[in-house]
Amino acid sequence: MTELTKILLDETEMPTQWYNIVADLPVPPPPPLHPGTHQPATAEDFGALFPQALIEQEMSQERYIDIPGDVLDVYRLWRPSPLFRAHRLEKLLDTPAKIYYKYEGVSPAGSHKPNTAVPQVWYNAQEGILKLTTETGAGQWGSSLAFACAQFGLECEIWQVAASYKAKPHRRTMMEVWGGKVYPSPSNETEFGRSLLAQDSDHPGSLGIAISEAVSKAIENPGTRYALGSVLNHVLLHQTIIGEEALLQMAKVGAVPDVLVGCTGGGSNFGGLAFPFLREKLKGNMDPVIRCVEPTACPTLTKGQFRYDFGDTAGLTPLMKMHTLGASFIPEPIHAGGLRYHGMAPLVSHVYDLGLVDAIAIPQTECFAAALQFARSEGIVPAPEPTHALAAAIREALACKESGEEKTILTALCGHGHLDLASYDKYMAGEMVDLDLPDNVIQAAMEGVPNIA
Amino acid sequence: MTELTKILLDETEMPTQWYNIVADLPVPPPPPLHPGTHQPATAEDFGALFPQALIEQEMSQERYIDIPGDVLDVYRLWRPSPLFRAHRLEKLLDTPAKIYYKYEGVSPAGSHKPNTAVPQVWYNAQEGILKLTTETGAGQWGSSLAFACAQFGLECEIWQVAASYKAKPHRRTMMEVWGGKVYPSPSNETEFGRSLLAQDSDHPGSLGIAISEAVSKAIENPGTRYALGSVLNHVLLHQTIIGEEALLQMAKVGAVPDVLVGCTGGGSNFGGLAFPFLREKLKGNMDPVIRCVEPTACPTLTKGQFRYDFGDTAGLTPLMKMHTLGASFIPEPIHAGGLRYHGMAPLVSHVYDLGLVDAIAIPQTECFAAALQFARSEGIVPAPEPTHALAAAIREALACKESGEEKTILTALCGHGHLDLASYDKYMAGEMVDLDLPDNVIQAAMEGVPNIA
Repeated sequence: MTELTKILLDETEMPTQWYNIVADLPVPPPPPLHPGTHQPATAEDFGALFPQALIEQEMSQERYIDIPGDVLDVYRLWRPSPLFRAHRLEKLLDTPAKIYYKYEGVSPAGSHKPNTAVPQVWYNAQEGILKLTTETGAGQWGSSLAFACAQFGLECEIWQVAASYKAKPHRRTMMEVWGGKVYPSPSNETEFGRSLLAQDSDHPGSLGIAISEAVSKAIENPGTRYALGSVLNHVLLHQTIIGEEALLQMAKVGAVPDVLVGCTGGGSNFGGLAFPFLREKLKGNMDPVIRCVEPTACPTLTKGQFRYDFGDTAGLTPLMKMHTLGASFIPEPIHAGGLRYHGMAPLVSHVYDLGLVDAIAIPQTECFAAALQFARSEGIVPAPEPTHALAAAIREALACKESGEEKTILTALCGHGHLDLASYDKYMAGEMVDLDLPDNVIQAAMEGVPNIA
Repeated sequence: MTELTKILLDETEMPTQWYNIVADLPVPPPPPLHPGTHQPATAEDFGALFPQALIEQEMSQERYIDIPGDVLDVYRLWRPSPLFRAHRLEKLLDTPAKIYYKYEGVSPAGSHKPNTAVPQVWYNAQEGILKLTTETGAGQWGSSLAFACAQFGLECEIWQVAASYKAKPHRRTMMEVWGGKVYPSPSNETEFGRSLLAQDSDHPGSLGIAISEAVSKAIENPGTRYALGSVLNHVLLHQTIIGEEALLQMAKVGAVPDVLVGCTGGGSNFGGLAFPFLREKLKGNMDPVIRCVEPTACPTLTKGQFRYDFGDTAGLTPLMKMHTLGASFIPEPIHAGGLRYHGMAPLVSHVYDLGLVDAIAIPQTECFAAALQFARSEGIVPAPEPTHALAAAIREALACKESGEEKTILTALCGHGHLDLASYDKYMAGEMVDLDLPDNVIQAAMEGVPNIA
C-alpha cells in the first residue's frame, strides 16, 4: 500500500467558515423574482418562511461566512468526513487513474443533508423559532432535519409524500426516533391536503404537494418556519464544508484533481464539493474538469432550459432563474429519489451557463452496475443518488485504462444505501429498466413555465 | 468543548497484532471435548470445518498474533474505528461521569463482525478454499462474511433462518449486493432441510437448523469450509483489535476507565473490547469494573450454568465448557437477535467464572428507552444489541449523578440500527413488552445438557 486508504482530518483541522461562490463569479447570478411583480425578491418576501440570518446568507456577497461554534460542535459528531483513495476499485478496474471519494454517509442520517439541517435549525433557534416544517420524499432530508431539531430542542413536522410514507416505512421510523412528527402528504392537517383527500382518499401525493402543505403550516403558525434541503444559495453555502475539507485532504497527499464528478438533484451535494474547487480553478491554482451527473430520467441541465421558473408545482415560491424541465414535470419513479427534481440550484445552473462546469446524464441501470462494482471492492453500499457520480467516475477511469493516462479523479459519495436496499433488490432481479424520456414530454411541461425575459 | 468529540487514530497507528488472553489467564480455560469420546478435541476434530491456521489460533497459547498484511489492508477501509466522548449524552443526563463509546458501525456491514469475517476468509483463501458456508439470523454475520468473501474472491453461501429471510429482506439484499448466495433455512439444499420441509413446507427455521445445514454442506463438499461469527476463541481473538485501538485512544486523552460495559450474545463484541483492558487490569495498570450486559430474555451468564454443552441445537459440534441455558433453549423473539444464543463464549464464561468480570441482565424496553436518549443526543441510531450496553452505561452515569462521582465509563457501540428500524417502530408504538422468563423453562432446557464432570 503506497498511500493511505483514508485521508483523515482531526476535528481541530475542520474548516470554520463556509465558502460563498457568489463573491468570486465573473458574472453575478440573476436574482430571484417576486412571483406577482416579477421584480427582484426582497428579504421581506422570504420573511414568513425563513429566519433573518438565513435570508441574509441567501443574498450575501461575502466570500466567507463563519460557522457558529454550536454548529461546529454538532458537526464534530461526524465531521470532518473521510476522504478515501479507492485502491480496491482501481485494482478491480485495472486503471492507471487514481480515484478519490469524499464520503458523507458517516453522518447520523447517512448523507450530506445534516450539513445544512444543523445550521438551519440553529439559526431558527437563535431567532426564537420553536417549530420547523418541511417536506420529504424518500426521507433523507426529513430525517436530517429531525436529527438537527433534536439537537437544539425544536419541534419538527414533516410532510412525507404518501407513496413513500407507505412504501418505505423505515425512513419514517428514523424521523420518529429523532422526535420528528411525520404526516403522509396529502394530509388532513392542511386545507390543501384535505381538499385533495376529498377527491381521492388514497392520493399518492407528490413533492410539490408536500411542499405546499409544509409551507402553509409555517406561514399560518406563529413561531414556526419552513426549511428546505437543497436548491437555495444558503443550502449550497452550508454544504461547502465538504469541498473545503476535501481540498485540505487532497493537499495532505499532494493530489490535485484532473476531473471532479458529483451527482446533481437539487444541486447541494454537487455545489458543496465542487464550489471550493471551482474557486481554486478560477484563481488558476488547478484546472480540473468539473462535471455534473444527472439521471437520464430527469435531465435538468442536459435537456432543460435556463429560465425563470417556480421552485414548486403549486407556484408558491419566488421565481428563480435555473435550469428547469418545467415545474409541472413529473419524472419517472427512478430509484434515486433525491435526483427527481424538475429544477436545478440557481447557482449550479449559473456556473453551468457560464461554461465553468459541464454535465452528462446516465441511465440508472449503468449506475447500479457501477454500485455493485463499488460495493464489492470498496465495501460501502452507496445510496442510489451517488451511484450516478460513481458511474461517471468509472467511465473516466476506464477511459484512462484505454489511453494510459494517470488522471486523478475526485467524486462525492454523498450517502450510504442502507435504507435503499429495495432498489438493489430490483436491479439484481433484472426488474430495473431505463425508460426513454420523449422530447415532447419535456416540451409539454415547459409550456407551463412563465415567460420572463 | 474541553475535549475532542472523536478520538481518532490514523491508519498508520492501527494495531498490527491481535491479543490472545489465554496467555495471561491465572487458570487455563477448560478444553473443548470430542462429543463422542469426551476427550479433549484435537485439531483433526475441527479439520473438516476450519482451515489449519484458524484451528491453530483456536488452540494457541501465544500472547500476540500478527495480523496479515492483506487483512490490515481491508481493515483500512474502516479501521481504526472512532472512539467518541459522549459530551451530548452526558449533558442530557446531567451527570459528572465521562462516557466514551467505541463505535464499530463504521464498517461496511455496520457492526464489529467484519473484524473476524475478513481474516477468516483470508486464511481460508490461503489454504485454497474456494467457498465458505455459514448461517445467519437477522443477517449481521451473513452480510459481513459475504463482504469479506467479495474482497478475496471466495464464494459465500448463507443459510438464513426462514422467518428472518421473509421478515427482513433488506439484510438478504445486502448479502446479495456483496455476491453472497442466500437460502432460507430449512432449505431444499440439504437432506436435513428437505426432511424438515417435508414435515412443514412453511417451517420458520431456527439458528440451530441453519447451522446444521451450513455445516453439512461444508463437510460434504471439497474446497468448502464453514465459518462462525462468534463464541470461538479465534473469533474473539480477531475482535481484540477493538480493545487495542480503544486503549491507544483512551491514552491519547489521558482517560482510564473505571467501568467498562459491553453487551454479550455469543461474546465476541464484549471480548473484543474487554480483553485488552482485562490484560491491563491483570498487570495492575488499571482497575476497571468490567461488566457483561445480557438481555433478561436470554440470561446466559446470570441464570445459566457453567458446564459442558453443545454449540448447536442438533449436537454436531464439539462440547464446550461455557455458561449455558441448554442447547435446546429457545429464547423469546426479542429484537436484539444477536443476543439470542443459548451459550456464551467459553473464554468469556471462564473469566466470569474466575470473577474477573461481572454480569447483569436488562429488559429490552429499558434498552430501547436508552437508545432513544442516545440517538437524540449523540445522533447515531444504535442496533438493538448495543442498546443493552448503553442502558448499562446510563445506569452507571445516573448513579454518578446521585453520588457525585466523576467516573469514566467506556462502552462498545458495536453497530448501527439502520436495518433494525422496525424494532424501534414497535417500541415507539408501545407494542414492545418484557416477558418473564420462568425458572422452570431454563430447568427444562438444562435437562438435555450432557452430564460431564
